[in-house]
Amino acid sequence: MPKRVDHDDRRREISDAVLAVIAGQGVNGATFRAVAEATNWSTGVLSHYFRNRDDMLLAALRRAGEQAATEQRAISDGPPGREAVRRILLDAVPLDSRRLALARIFVFYYAEAAADPLLQAEINGYLERWRRQTVHLIEAAQRAGEIDPALHPVPLAAELVAMADGLSIHASFQPALFGADEVDRILTGTIERLAPR
Amino acid sequence: MPKRVDHDDRRREISDAVLAVIAGQGVNGATFRAVAEATNWSTGVLSHYFRNRDDMLLAALRRAGEQAATEQRAISDGPPGREAVRRILLDAVPLDSRRLALARIFVFYYAEAAADPLLQAEINGYLERWRRQTVHLIEAAQRAGEIDPALHPVPLAAELVAMADGLSIHASFQPALFGADEVDRILTGTIERLAPR
Repeated sequence: MPKRVDHDDRRREISDAVLAVIAGQGVNGATFRAVAEATNWSTGVLSHYFRNRDDMLLAALRRAGEQAATEQRAISDGPPGREAVRRILLDAVPLDSRRLALARIFVFYYAEAAADPLLQAEINGYLERWRRQTVHLIEAAQRAGEIDPALHPVPLAAELVAMADGLSIHASFQPALFGADEVDRILTGTIERLAPR
Repeated sequence: MPKRVDHDDRRREISDAVLAVIAGQGVNGATFRAVAEATNWSTGVLSHYFRNRDDMLLAALRRAGEQAATEQRAISDGPPGREAVRRILLDAVPLDSRRLALARIFVFYYAEAAADPLLQAEINGYLERWRRQTVHLIEAAQRAGEIDPALHPVPLAAELVAMADGLSIHASFQPALFGADEVDRILTGTIERLAPR
């Protein structure tokens, strides 16, 4: 029996390649031709999986969201505490190419979503999931005695997610200002202030 | 002697009108025609002040940056303390039309800047000024005994500006989730945790 390539697997594989191109060259660099060069598939094959460039970028956005959700679940499954909260924030900061692609494609879609209600709903769903996961991690850390029980998890999660998202954007603009050491210094400060008084 | 209209004043006045259109209709709605309707000037007059739509939007971005800088200076000139830090953060959150236009035009230019080094330098200059003002306010509040002297002003300013910027974007996407009361709850939490222990 000939080996069958699963359509969804292939789409996912190409979406990963699109994200790699975005990490290296930005969203504007992610054309059918650039992705074809990066994958060794022809633009004809790509157009079998994606109707057009917009469709390909949207698949990459969803793939980046999926990757982030997988990371977030892994953190939630680990030990509760301030460190888990720090890790979910750090996961948004572009210190490697996966997270740089995430930062870049999200800024691109933040601007696109302003004029497109369906895209806006998709982005909002992503942000809400991130906040919800953060609420759970804060509550678990509070039960473990690692975060001040007087802090309300909902506004705190909104604050921390806003901070991580802003930092993700700012670090993608000025990587020299936001290297691993500086990001560590920033997040350590944030997280230590959550400790019980 | 006939009254002379100052070219820069007129450009500023039109830029304010562009920002008002952006607050109401988004950046995509800010066309020459929409701005002409809002100002009662013809598109011909507008094209005397702006070479094209991009030029008009860039003028609106700079005007929004100017307005924010003016607010930031007024806060810096007021009494030092945690309240001043709270105010400089709150100034970025889109709770009125001036700040909604600011949030919208900045998200638009964040995406544009990804492909344009000159625009990127302009955006970075704006973010750096904002962080610098925040460092000064933190130091002044520390001297006034209102912020924990153990906190390092530079990473703390980077954190707070990232948070305010992220919150600005998230609130412009989901205004119902981020009304004045909720934003107050979020920022009060942030600011109270800076108090000396």
